[in-house]
Amino acid sequence: MSNSLQFKGYALTGKLTYSSASSVHRLTKRRFADLSNWSDLKVIEFKPKNFQPEDIEIAITHCGVCGSDLHTLKQGWGESKLPLIAGHEIVGTVMRVGDKVTEFKPGDRVGVGAQIGACLSCKRCNANYENYCPKQIDTYNAEYPDGVVTQGGYATAIRAHERFVFAIPDNLESRHAASMLCAGLTVFSPLTTNGAGPGKTVGVIGIGGLGHYAVLFAKALGAEVYAFTHDASKVKDIKQMGADHVINTSEQKDFAKGLSGEFDIIISTLDSYSPQTPLADFLSMLVVHGKFITVGLPDANNPLPPIHPFDLMSSGALLGGSHIGSKKECVEMLQLAAKKGVKPWIEELPMKEVGKALRGLGDNKVRYRYVLTQDLV
Amino acid sequence: MSNSLQFKGYALTGKLTYSSASSVHRLTKRRFADLSNWSDLKVIEFKPKNFQPEDIEIAITHCGVCGSDLHTLKQGWGESKLPLIAGHEIVGTVMRVGDKVTEFKPGDRVGVGAQIGACLSCKRCNANYENYCPKQIDTYNAEYPDGVVTQGGYATAIRAHERFVFAIPDNLESRHAASMLCAGLTVFSPLTTNGAGPGKTVGVIGIGGLGHYAVLFAKALGAEVYAFTHDASKVKDIKQMGADHVINTSEQKDFAKGLSGEFDIIISTLDSYSPQTPLADFLSMLVVHGKFITVGLPDANNPLPPIHPFDLMSSGALLGGSHIGSKKECVEMLQLAAKKGVKPWIEELPMKEVGKALRGLGDNKVRYRYVLTQDLV
Repeated sequence: MSNSLQFKGYALTGKLTYSSASSVHRLTKRRFADLSNWSDLKVIEFKPKNFQPEDIEIAITHCGVCGSDLHTLKQGWGESKLPLIAGHEIVGTVMRVGDKVTEFKPGDRVGVGAQIGACLSCKRCNANYENYCPKQIDTYNAEYPDGVVTQGGYATAIRAHERFVFAIPDNLESRHAASMLCAGLTVFSPLTTNGAGPGKTVGVIGIGGLGHYAVLFAKALGAEVYAFTHDASKVKDIKQMGADHVINTSEQKDFAKGLSGEFDIIISTLDSYSPQTPLADFLSMLVVHGKFITVGLPDANNPLPPIHPFDLMSSGALLGGSHIGSKKECVEMLQLAAKKGVKPWIEELPMKEVGKALRGLGDNKVRYRYVLTQDLV
Repeated sequence: MSNSLQFKGYALTGKLTYSSASSVHRLTKRRFADLSNWSDLKVIEFKPKNFQPEDIEIAITHCGVCGSDLHTLKQGWGESKLPLIAGHEIVGTVMRVGDKVTEFKPGDRVGVGAQIGACLSCKRCNANYENYCPKQIDTYNAEYPDGVVTQGGYATAIRAHERFVFAIPDNLESRHAASMLCAGLTVFSPLTTNGAGPGKTVGVIGIGGLGHYAVLFAKALGAEVYAFTHDASKVKDIKQMGADHVINTSEQKDFAKGLSGEFDIIISTLDSYSPQTPLADFLSMLVVHGKFITVGLPDANNPLPPIHPFDLMSSGALLGGSHIGSKKECVEMLQLAAKKGVKPWIEELPMKEVGKALRGLGDNKVRYRYVLTQDLV
C-alpha cells in the first residue's frame, strides 16, 4: 500500500490564555487555562508517529465524541499540548501494516481507543493490564518516547502499534463500534472485572455516553440493572435500553432507603462532584464487600465528596477506580456486542460539525453519544 | 451453676457536658460532647442482659483496652449512653450456659469481642457476615431489643449469645488471646478476605495495637510485610515483630516513589486524618486492583483526606472499609495464632488502673496493647 496518506485533522490551535481563576493541578503541577474558544477547531496538517514494524496505518471513517475530549480541550485535566486533535473512539480501514504485524492486513475494519502505547514489557503489560502500564501513552495529548506528539481521531488517519488496534466483528457496524472503544470499554472492564452477570445486581449512576453503555452491557452480561438519573427526560429511553429499574434521583431523594445492601456493583459515570453528591447513600446500597467504581474523571480541581471510614465500614464496601480496559477485554466486549446485538444510541454528524457535537455534549443534549463521520478526504 | 454472679464494672458516670465546640455527627445526628473526666471511671453495679436459652455467662479474667473504648468514652463517635462500661476484648471462664447452648460448658475458657448481637436470620447473618448485620449490637454502648443497655468488659462478668462467644485454644494464654478478639480480628479479617499469603506483599500503616497485629498475622499468613510508622522509637520493635521492611515516614518523606505498584493489600490503622495525610501516595503503591483497607475509625467529624478519581484510576485501586470480623474468621484466627505461636506485645495492668491505661493509649505510650486483669471479685 502507499505511504501517501495525508494526515489532517480538526485541531484546537493558538495559545493558551489563563484566566484569573486559574489554579494548579496537584498531580501534574500544571496551571489550568480557561479557554473561550475551546470548541472552535480548525483543520490542520500534522506529523504522525514514525511508522514502525509493529504499526498499522488506518484511514479513519468514524470517531466518537467523548467527555475526555471536552475535559482536554477545556484544559480541565491540566494544560494541553497545542495544536490538539482530540478523539479516541476511532474506527477505520487498514491502509498499511508494518513488517512485524501479524493480526491485521490492508482492508481490515479496525478500531483504536483511548490508549495508543505502553512499554509492553513490564509486569502489568505482560499480565494483560497494559491499560495500567506506568508508561502508557494516551491516544492524543501525549508524547511518544521520540518526542512525537500523539493526535486523535478527529482526523483523516492514525498510526498505532497493533496491540492497540482492535478487529471489528463483521456484524458490528462501524458507527456502532466507534464509541464502544472508549465509552463502552470503560464500563465493560469494571463490570466484568467485578463479576457482573446472572444473579448480580448492578447500579449505574448517570446515564450519558458511559452510563448508557453500562446499562446495555450489564444487561448483555445477564445482571439485574438499576439506572439512576436526575434527568426526567431520559427515563423512557433508559427503560428502552433495557434497565430493569430506573430511579429519578431528582424526585426520589430518599432512593437509598429501600435499596440498602442490594448492589453487588455500582458504576458511577459522574464526572463532576459537589459536597452534596450523595456518595455515602450510594455506598450504603452495596452488599458486603460490594464495589462502587467511579469511571468518570472530573476536572482535576474537583475531588470526590468527603467520605468517612464509617461510610465504608457498615458493608466492608470498596470504592474503586478503573482505567479504560485492556485489549483482551476490548476483544471480549466487541464479541459480546456482536453476539448479543448490543447497539449504542448514537447521533451521527459529519466531522466538520465537531464543535456542535462538543457543545451538545457539554450541555447534556446528546442522546447518548455523538459519532462523527469522515468528511476530510 | 449458680445465678449469683454480681455484675460490677468500671464505668463513666454522670452527665454529659457539651463544649462550645460541639458539632453534629452527620450520620447519627448526635451532638459531640467534650468530657474532661472521660478516663475517671467508678465502680458501679449494673443489670446484665436477660439470660436466654442460647446465652452464656462468663466470669471475666482479662480485658484489652481498645481505641474504640477511648473514642466512645471521649464521645468522639457521638454521644454515649451513661453510665458506660467500655471494654470489648474479653476473656474469661464460662459460669453458666442456657438450655440451648451446644458449643460451651461451664469451666470453658472463652472470649467475647466487639460484637454481642445480630438478628441471626438475615442474608448477611446466614452467609457468615453477622459482623455486617444491619441489626448488629455492639458489646457496649448499645441496646438489646428489650431495652437493656449493653455493658463491656471492664467488669466482673458478661452474658452473651453463643454465636458471639469464642473458644480459646488450650495453648493460647488468656492474656494473649484477649486483645486478639477486637484488635486482632479487625486486621485478620481484611487480610484473609483480600488474600494475604505467600507471594503477596502487605503494607501496614500505623503500628499501634491494630497495626502490630497486622504485622504479626500478615507474617503468620506468609506474606511479605512492609510496616509504615512515623515513630522512630518503634522501628526496632517492629523488626522484632517480624516485619520484613520498616519505613519511618517522618524521615523518608518520599517513601512512595520506590514502592509504586508493589502492594497487594495495604491495611491502614490510622484513626485520625488531616488533609496532609498522604493517602494518594499510599494508593499509588498498590498493584492493579490492589486494596487499601482502612480499619481505623476516626472521630465522626474527621473524614478521610480528599481524594480524586485520578488517585484510584492509575492502578484501578480500591479503597475499602472493614468491620471487625465474623465468628468463622475469629475461630480461624485463634487457630492460626495457636498453631504459629502468634503472641501480641502487651502490657498487663490490674483493672483498677484502667484510667492509666486509657490515658497511656491516648498518649501513644502503649507498647502495643494494654490488657487489664480482673481485680473486682
